Formats: sequence, C-alpha cells, structure tokens
Amino acid sequence: MTTAPESFVALLSFRARIGWGAPPAARPVTNPLYEFGGGYPDPGSFPYDELVEATARMMKAEGAEALTYGEPQGYRGLRELVCHKYGLFEGLKVGPENLIIANGSGHALSLAFSAFVDPGDVILSEAPTFSGTLQTIRRHGPRVLDVPVDQDGLVVEVARQHLADLRAQGKRCKLIYTIVNFQNPSGPSLSLKRRRELIDLAQEYDTLILEDDAYGELRFEGEHLPSLYALDGGGRVIRAGTVSKILGAGFRLGWLCAPKEMIPAFQGFLFGGGVNPFASRVATYFLRDHLAPHVARLVNVYRAKRDAMLRGLWEVLKDTDVEISRPEGGFFIWIRLPTGTDTAKLHEGAAKARVQYTAGPAFFPNGGGERFIRLAFSFEPPERCYEGARLIARAILDARA
Amino acid sequence: MTTAPESFVALLSFRARIGWGAPPAARPVTNPLYEFGGGYPDPGSFPYDELVEATARMMKAEGAEALTYGEPQGYRGLRELVCHKYGLFEGLKVGPENLIIANGSGHALSLAFSAFVDPGDVILSEAPTFSGTLQTIRRHGPRVLDVPVDQDGLVVEVARQHLADLRAQGKRCKLIYTIVNFQNPSGPSLSLKRRRELIDLAQEYDTLILEDDAYGELRFEGEHLPSLYALDGGGRVIRAGTVSKILGAGFRLGWLCAPKEMIPAFQGFLFGGGVNPFASRVATYFLRDHLAPHVARLVNVYRAKRDAMLRGLWEVLKDTDVEISRPEGGFFIWIRLPTGTDTAKLHEGAAKARVQYTAGPAFFPNGGGERFIRLAFSFEPPERCYEGARLIARAILDARA
Repeated sequence: MTTAPESFVALLSFRARIGWGAPPAARPVTNPLYEFGGGYPDPGSFPYDELVEATARMMKAEGAEALTYGEPQGYRGLRELVCHKYGLFEGLKVGPENLIIANGSGHALSLAFSAFVDPGDVILSEAPTFSGTLQTIRRHGPRVLDVPVDQDGLVVEVARQHLADLRAQGKRCKLIYTIVNFQNPSGPSLSLKRRRELIDLAQEYDTLILEDDAYGELRFEGEHLPSLYALDGGGRVIRAGTVSKILGAGFRLGWLCAPKEMIPAFQGFLFGGGVNPFASRVATYFLRDHLAPHVARLVNVYRAKRDAMLRGLWEVLKDTDVEISRPEGGFFIWIRLPTGTDTAKLHEGAAKARVQYTAGPAFFPNGGGERFIRLAFSFEPPERCYEGARLIARAILDARA
Repeated sequence: MTTAPESFVALLSFRARIGWGAPPAARPVTNPLYEFGGGYPDPGSFPYDELVEATARMMKAEGAEALTYGEPQGYRGLRELVCHKYGLFEGLKVGPENLIIANGSGHALSLAFSAFVDPGDVILSEAPTFSGTLQTIRRHGPRVLDVPVDQDGLVVEVARQHLADLRAQGKRCKLIYTIVNFQNPSGPSLSLKRRRELIDLAQEYDTLILEDDAYGELRFEGEHLPSLYALDGGGRVIRAGTVSKILGAGFRLGWLCAPKEMIPAFQGFLFGGGVNPFASRVATYFLRDHLAPHVARLVNVYRAKRDAMLRGLWEVLKDTDVEISRPEGGFFIWIRLPTGTDTAKLHEGAAKARVQYTAGPAFFPNGGGERFIRLAFSFEPPERCYEGARLIARAILDARA
C-alpha cells in the first residue's frame, strides 16, 4: 500500500486545512439499539415497489436521457415537479428557471455558500442550527455571528444589532442563514411577524437570506406559514429544499430556489454533467403520481413517532425542570437538560442503554449548548421511540451530579 | 416574478466572480443532426432492461440503505467494484479505503482542486486538455502553466522546465494535471518512459500528480500501460475515474483513488449525505454481473465508430496537409486543420451541414488552438459518423481562405 508523503499537508488549500487533523467533534454511541442521532427518514415508509415500477416506466419513456449527461440546472421534469409541490403545499408560484438541482439540500446550501462567502466574510446564523450545515459553513471559512432562537424562531432584534454593528465597522453581512420551519434542532417555526421583519432587515442592510426548509411539508398540526421566499418582494431570499424527507435521502436530490439572475452563480460550483439524471427521473416519476397521498401518510407516521417519544420522555422526567420541545413538524426534539445534569455521565448512561443522541454543542457556531441534547424520532418505529425515550430519560435522571 | 437586486453581484465570492457575466466561450451548432460535440456515450449500448432488473434486485436486497443517507466515502460495494475493475483491467491492487466516490469524475476532479488549490496557486496542465476540467480549474482561480502534448503524451521536459523556473522563483507547483490514456482531446497515451519520468519529476519537486483516466478500459488496440498510480511508489498520484463511459453518464458516479491519508481532504468538500446511495447501488448491481462482457462489447462499438469517422474524414481530406489523430481508444478525434482554413467559414459550413464539433480554443488553458477542432465519434452510429465526417470534412475544404 502506498503512503502519501508527509509533505502533501503543506500543499493543502486554505479551505482544506480548516479543521485538518482535528478529532471528530461528536462521540457517537457505538452500535446503538435506538437510533435517535441523525435525521434519517423512516425506512418503513419507503415506497420500494413503487420505485421499482417508476424506474421501469421511466426507462421506457426516457431511458436514453436518464443514462447520459443532463441539463446543467438539473432535470426539467424534477424542477417542474418542485414548482408543483410549492404550489400544492404553499400556493407559491415559481418557475423551473428559478430552480437549480443539487445532490441533496446540503449540497444545495454549499452552492449558496460557495457563491457568496469568502474566507473571512461575515454571515449570521441561528444558534443553535443544523450541525451538518455548520460543517459546510466552516469549510467556507467565514466568521459566523450567533443569533438566538426563541419560541417565535430567530430573534430578529439580535440580527438587527449585529448588522448595525457591522455597518458601524464598515463591514457587510453576506447572508443570514435560517431554518424557518420546525427549526433544527430547537423546534419553533419563525412567526409571520418575524418573517416580515427579517425580510425588511435584509432589505435595509442590503444582504441576502438563505432559507433552509427541509421539513416544511411534514407539518403535524398548526398553520402553514408562507415562506420567506414567498413574502420577499426584493429578490433577497434563496430557498433550499429536498426530497430527502418526503421520499428518500438516498436519491440525493435537493435544490435552491432563487431569483433566476442568481442561478448562474450557483451553477458555477456544480462541477460537471448535470445532477443525477437517472435518480432525478426515478424520483420524479414516482412523485408525479404519489406526492400528496405519500406526504399525507408520512405526516401521520412522524406525528405518531413524535408523540411516542414525548410520552416516554415526560413519563420519566415530569418531576424535573427539564424543557422539552414539542415541534409542530419535522424530525427532532430538543431538550434542555435538568439543572445539574452531568453530561459525561449522561453519555455513559446513554451508551450503556445504547441510545444514540446528539449532544448540544454540535449545533452552536461559536460554542455553548452543553446543557442541550437533540433526539431524532424519525427513524425508529413509535414503540421504540417510546422505549428509547424512557431509557435516555432515565439516563438523564441518573446523570444528576 | 421576483428579480434579484443588482447589489447581489457585489456580494458574490471571489470564486463566483471568476468569469461572471462573460459570454459563453463556445458557439455550438444549433439543432445538430450529427452530434460530434460532447463525449456522450453511445445510447444504443445502454443496458436498459438489465438496469431495471438490477434496480429490482437491489431494492429487494438493500432498499432501505439505498434510500437513506450513505457512507461519507461512498457506497462500499461500489468502491469494492472499482477495486475489482482496477484488478481486472490493469492488475492494479487498491482497497476500498483508497477510494472516494463523487458525482462523476468531473466532480471528483473538483474535489482534488478544492483540496489542493487556492486562488493564485500554480498548477501544470496539458495544453490542450479537457475543456470541462479547464472550467473547473478556472473556478478555483490558479495560474495554469501549459505543457504541450506530442505523440508520446505530455512533454515531461517542458514540465521540468516550469518546475525549475518556479523553484527559482521560490514558488511551488500544487499539482500536475494529466490525461494519461487517449489524451482528451489530442489522442496519444503517455508512454511508459514518460510515465516514469513524470513520477520522478513529481518526487524531485515535491508536488502531486492528478491522473485523469475516464476512458482507459475502452482501448481498441495497442498495449495497456500501467497507470501513474500503479507506477508511483511515493504516494504522489491521485487518480480519477468514472462509470460514465463504461455504463452511463446519467448515474453521475466517479471517484478519486489516492493514498488513504489524503481521503479526508477530499471528503471535506463532499457536502452532505454520502454520494448517491441509490444510483451507486443500481450501477454496482449491474456491473458486478456484467462488467467484462459489457466493456468488451463497448470496445467493439466505439472502434467501429472511430473507424467510420476516420474513413469519412480521410476520403475527403486526403489531398490536404490536414493532421488527424488516430486514438487507440476513447471517444475523440483531434484535427489540425489544413493550412489556410478560415475557422469562421468552417463554423458557418458546419452549421449549415448541422454537424456539431468543438473548436480548439476550448481546450487551451492560456489561449491558442485556433487551428484545431475536436470531433466525438461516441454518440452517433457508425454510418452517421461516416456521413457526418464527410460533411464536416467538406466544410473544412470549403473553408480554405
């Protein structure tokens, strides 16, 4: 086996050297019995047979196109389907020219960061925010200013203060990254009033908003709120979406929705060949016929899981000062641990009970979050959500210092 | 429809602004009857039914894994298959730990550039080289030094001179990009002697080699040569490959093969979710059973197309001083136009005959190439390769100034 010369490290790019050699941040539970770590979609709800059928049908209709290079902006059929989806769930009208397909929404977000963020630039992000995006952001090297989240979502007044401070320093914020629905990890959706304020703020400070919405269709209750993209009149919002949660993450299909003048800026970072002509078509052929009923079914599936997990948690933790989110949709529960919880002990207890979870610090751009953990209820069946929740709740109780 | 504010251009990153607003370089023939432009695989050779069958079989065996997030380095089954392929065609022994899967080899190459190249860095590239990679290189902002190609491939002595000059200036070359087999566009394969010299050179100047080999299995005649990766003892070679030419570009599956210590540097630029778990598995299930006979069939298919195109070209151009490559494999023919050819007239003539081709300048990092064109014989059936070749050859004759 060949070994790389030590000197290759000296040849690495600035961005490659970010975090190079650092130990992994998370300490996952090995061989978990209860997978509450990542936002994995429910494997019991994958439409296996229908997807094989869609593959066969698609290959007959446009196999030659599916097996060769694709359109630079992504398969038009999928872009049209996304337009249809936005119309169906939100009454939002966009055209295929507003969409660019990427390899999942994580990749879509990376296109936005690549297009707008240089090392040393300043951006705003919720704290906490999705840990995966934080890794993507870090790779681009900006300074991130934290904006807290309360029950109405991102606290716009803190964002305003940051922007004012930056202006006073002669600096400009490149973009504001926000997860608008069932904020990952903390749960709340950005209120309508705050949505309007945030857009006005972006306008006032001449910056952009990157609106991440991977879970919007999976609303269990409460009222749908219009997206920032829909509310914005100024062309300042870039919106990311995905089929990962409503169909399957294995297709790696996400997108950005943006003013069409911006699309070439993202396309410049899509290297080669058009995204996934084969998988795009399989997903599109299935979703064209099944979108609304499939999503309706998933809403019931995930609501039951959320409820089972919440029941398990509260049964055990009811006499503590724990705070547990109750998201109106999505995949995650966010827990502020009871006063005096020893998180090292909690990790040991969870490992012994083989319950996977994510410790809070993974979600904070600039440190903090030790008192929080995130649980995903998406993967396990309801009865295991309940059991596992009781087990980790017990580990929390046992971890009192 | 929302329009982006003009000011968004001021927010673009350094890399996004490279080439921003520039008109497209190529002038494609609209609505071509003879598609000799891009390296599109033969649609008549796609194994449509077998792929549907592979999808069904795969979904039964590992559908749940295919439809969710995948391994960060890419589906292990595909990495094992690539190892098998390298063993089968080249006797090269690598392990799955040496491979990282990407969305096509264009994307794989971009991972290497992202990992090692900052704006302003210096790299070496063949001139001419693949136009698609040139776009990827430009997006990363390096200075590219041209290395010419002769009948034995990259001229190592010129590369040596560049490296010596850089050293004298206190600068270092980040990497040498080379297409080793059936060089795209110009045709020759790097000779064994030159392969050894190039590796010694990289060693002497402590730099890396990025070996691009998208076509190696599609050798119509002549002897297989060991890859730079196989010859290198120093861990300085990163090798890119793809299933685009031996199966179908629509799967968007390529890879880098590298010393395993380097893999994390590439992985840092794969944003989210593992590459294409669904498409990876469909391709793997098919190729596991059909690799050798399928490739053997393709070799015959593409050889016949090459021969048909060469016949058409020579029949018309035999009395000129044209130079026409005769590649031992791959998809492309490279033509040095007869003395005095007016390339604007040629473009008109080709457009009238509706023959798509690629003008030479697209392949040169720093200008030049006006006297060359590239024809792809991969897409059209042999009889149309012959007809179209005669038509463009006639357009060449008619374009004499």
